[in-house]
Amino acid sequence: MFGDGFFTTGVIEGNQLLNAVYHKERLLKSAKMLLFVTYDGEALFDALNRLLISVEKASIRITVTRTQFERGYAISSAQDCLATIQVFPWVATPESDCQVFYAETPVSVNSKLAGLKHLNRLDNVLAASEITQKNQEALLCDNELIVCGSRTNLFIASDKGWVTPLLKRAGIEGITRRLVLQSMVACDIPVKEKDISRLEMENAKAAFLTNSLVGIWPISRLGNKKLATDLVQQLQFQLNFIR
Amino acid sequence: MFGDGFFTTGVIEGNQLLNAVYHKERLLKSAKMLLFVTYDGEALFDALNRLLISVEKASIRITVTRTQFERGYAISSAQDCLATIQVFPWVATPESDCQVFYAETPVSVNSKLAGLKHLNRLDNVLAASEITQKNQEALLCDNELIVCGSRTNLFIASDKGWVTPLLKRAGIEGITRRLVLQSMVACDIPVKEKDISRLEMENAKAAFLTNSLVGIWPISRLGNKKLATDLVQQLQFQLNFIR
Repeated sequence: MFGDGFFTTGVIEGNQLLNAVYHKERLLKSAKMLLFVTYDGEALFDALNRLLISVEKASIRITVTRTQFERGYAISSAQDCLATIQVFPWVATPESDCQVFYAETPVSVNSKLAGLKHLNRLDNVLAASEITQKNQEALLCDNELIVCGSRTNLFIASDKGWVTPLLKRAGIEGITRRLVLQSMVACDIPVKEKDISRLEMENAKAAFLTNSLVGIWPISRLGNKKLATDLVQQLQFQLNFIR
Repeated sequence: MFGDGFFTTGVIEGNQLLNAVYHKERLLKSAKMLLFVTYDGEALFDALNRLLISVEKASIRITVTRTQFERGYAISSAQDCLATIQVFPWVATPESDCQVFYAETPVSVNSKLAGLKHLNRLDNVLAASEITQKNQEALLCDNELIVCGSRTNLFIASDKGWVTPLLKRAGIEGITRRLVLQSMVACDIPVKEKDISRLEMENAKAAFLTNSLVGIWPISRLGNKKLATDLVQQLQFQLNFIR
C-alpha cells in the first residue's frame, strides 16, 4: 500500500538462482531494516528451491510486502508479510553498448533507506519513463552527484582508477556491483566507492553499468559525448566476469 | 508494486466528502505529475457520490494505483489505473493535546515528488513505528529542517508570526494545511511558508499539527519542553475552524 516492502531480481541458470547467498542476505537485511518481524528467509528459499526443480533458465523476481489491515502508517502488531516469486522467460542481455543521459527526475534521498532494494521506487519509475529509443538508460542524480542508473549501478574510470558511487544517501547496493567490486579487489585492480560528480562523469575515460540481468554493460555515449569502450572490454576480460 | 500511485484521506459528513473540490484537485494533480494518463477524476467522483448516498458519517480513503503487467520500472503504453474507495467507521478525533518528538527516520527528499500524497511512504511507516504511548506524533526532518509529522502538517508561532514548512523538497501539501493558510489570510493573521529549523521549533511560542481527520491539533510538549496551547486555542476561536 505504501510501497512497504522489498525485492530482489536475479538469474536462474541450471535450475539454480545465481549468487543465491547474496540474494538471501539482501532480503534478510531489508527485512531487518524495514521491521518485517515475521519474515522467514529459510521458508522462502525452501519454496524457491522446490520451484526451481522445474525452471532451467529464467529471470526471477522475489517480492516481499507487508500485509496488514489497519488504517494508517503505523505497523500493526498483527503485521504479516507475503513473499511472491515471479519467473520470467529469459531474454538475452543487450549486445550493443549503452547510451545514457541525465534524468530530469532526481533520485529520492533517505539515509535510512539508502542501499536497500525497497519498493519506494517512484523515482526509478519516472526516470525510466524518460528513456527513449536513442538512449537505453537514465542516470539519476542527487543534485550534482550521480547516484545510479534507473535500473543499474555505475562504475567510471577516473584519473584515479575505477570508482563507483557511494550509496549512503540514495540508490541500491546491487549484487552485481558487489561482485564486480570483489572481483576487482581480487585482481588487484584499484577501485573505490566515493561520491561522483557530473563533472567527473563528463571527464571519465570509460564507464559501465551493472545489474543482475545485463552483468557489465559498457557506456558508449553520455549525451553528445562519446566514450571509448575498450577499457571496459579489457576489464571484463581481466575479471573474466559474466554475471 | 513500486508504491506507484497516490491517495487522499478525508471526512464524510452528511453524505458529503468535506472539501471535495480540493480532494479532486489533489488527485488530478498527482495523476498529472505521476503520468497516470488514463486517470478519470469525473468517473471516480461520480462513483464516489453514488456510494455516499448510503454513508452519513465516516472517514474515507481514495487510492489510485498503476496497473500494468510488464516487468521493470518503465511505464507501459498499456498502463491503466485502479481507484479504490475505502470507507472506515468514524472515530472521534483526539481530545487531548499532542506530544511530539523528532523521529530518527529522516523524511525522503525528492523535489519532483514533494507536496504530492503519493504512495512512496516508507519514511512515514518507519517514523510511525517510532511513536510510543507517551508521544502521539513523530516529526520528520530533512537534516536540520523540520518538514512534517508522520501523518500531519506543522504550524509554529515564531517571533515573526505563524509559519509552516515550505514543502519544496519533501512532505505532503495537506488539504487542512491549505484551509488553515487560507483562513489565516482571510482573518488577516500573518502566516508564511518557509524553511523551519529545529532551533526555531525549540524556540516556538506555540505549535500545532493539522490533517483532515484531526483538524487543528495543539502541541503541548516537544520532547521534554512544554508548549503553551492557549495561543492555538485563541487561533482556533479566531478562525472558527473545525476541519
